[in-house]
Amino acid sequence: MSTLPTLRIVGIDPGLNITGYAVIESTGQQVKLIEAGVVRGKSTGSLAARLQEIFEGVRDVIASLSPEVMAIEQLYSHYERPTTAILMGHARGVIVLAAQLGGIEVQSYAATKVKKLLTGNGRAPKAQVQQAVIQPFRLSKAPEPPDVADAMAIALCHHFHRRESSPIGGLNSKRGRAAS
Amino acid sequence: MSTLPTLRIVGIDPGLNITGYAVIESTGQQVKLIEAGVVRGKSTGSLAARLQEIFEGVRDVIASLSPEVMAIEQLYSHYERPTTAILMGHARGVIVLAAQLGGIEVQSYAATKVKKLLTGNGRAPKAQVQQAVIQPFRLSKAPEPPDVADAMAIALCHHFHRRESSPIGGLNSKRGRAAS
Repeated sequence: MSTLPTLRIVGIDPGLNITGYAVIESTGQQVKLIEAGVVRGKSTGSLAARLQEIFEGVRDVIASLSPEVMAIEQLYSHYERPTTAILMGHARGVIVLAAQLGGIEVQSYAATKVKKLLTGNGRAPKAQVQQAVIQPFRLSKAPEPPDVADAMAIALCHHFHRRESSPIGGLNSKRGRAAS
Repeated sequence: MSTLPTLRIVGIDPGLNITGYAVIESTGQQVKLIEAGVVRGKSTGSLAARLQEIFEGVRDVIASLSPEVMAIEQLYSHYERPTTAILMGHARGVIVLAAQLGGIEVQSYAATKVKKLLTGNGRAPKAQVQQAVIQPFRLSKAPEPPDVADAMAIALCHHFHRRESSPIGGLNSKRGRAAS
């Protein structure tokens, strides 16, 4: 069977309080969870102190687990409050910087794309997306906190996208599991 | 005459294409321009590459000119397009991170505060604020590009704010120049 080369992906769900991360290994057909967890910003710290914690936390994940690509949700322009969107931009900025300084590529996916690839429905509710990581990673339930499940979802999205857009992977995935 | 201790301030006007900076020295009464200029993001680069350029540019300004505090405009929540606000958040995030990693404090000022302190009018047009840096720094005209003038304005704002909020500076400033 032809497979894509193994690729290590880090999925990130950015937040000023909790940033979820999930490092997975993708072959064309299969995924394996390497490590997932959260980086916490000091809840009592200044914005600057929180940004430092996020930056250093993500930098350490990249340095210790050596992912080759970062998957992260695209800019959201539909936050309820503009201030929230701007603050999220701060967090996302230092995360993208950590990837760049770590020498790894950043791939962004629209929320609708993540939902579509994971559930088949671009408007699926968030909880359904979080549930969708259970089967591919052979978990007993959706990971907690939800930031971890979201990070796994975005990493998985990159895996699916890669399979879909590869001539090898695409062929195999059309054949379905029975063919592999 | 009593004066405040000399303080070196870096004012920053963040932008994804051009980030203006101005390093000034403030005593309670007087200001001196040390260096001002711009950090340019590669206009053709990815967001990640631009963020790296901004981060490293600001980090180098801090390392080479040793300011003790960074003055930067507060979050703006009234951009016309939310996407612009989020992208600006990315730039501002890596700038605040550069300050934090350089061990210097970040002081934010609302745009209305900057305008009020520099022109006496919290709703002054942007061009008037840029003109207001001419006299204190003994320039012949407003600096170009405007990002530099904006960076000088925010640095100057911190100087005025400091003078205003200090018992010594406040006293002297009430007496006016004749008393010094």
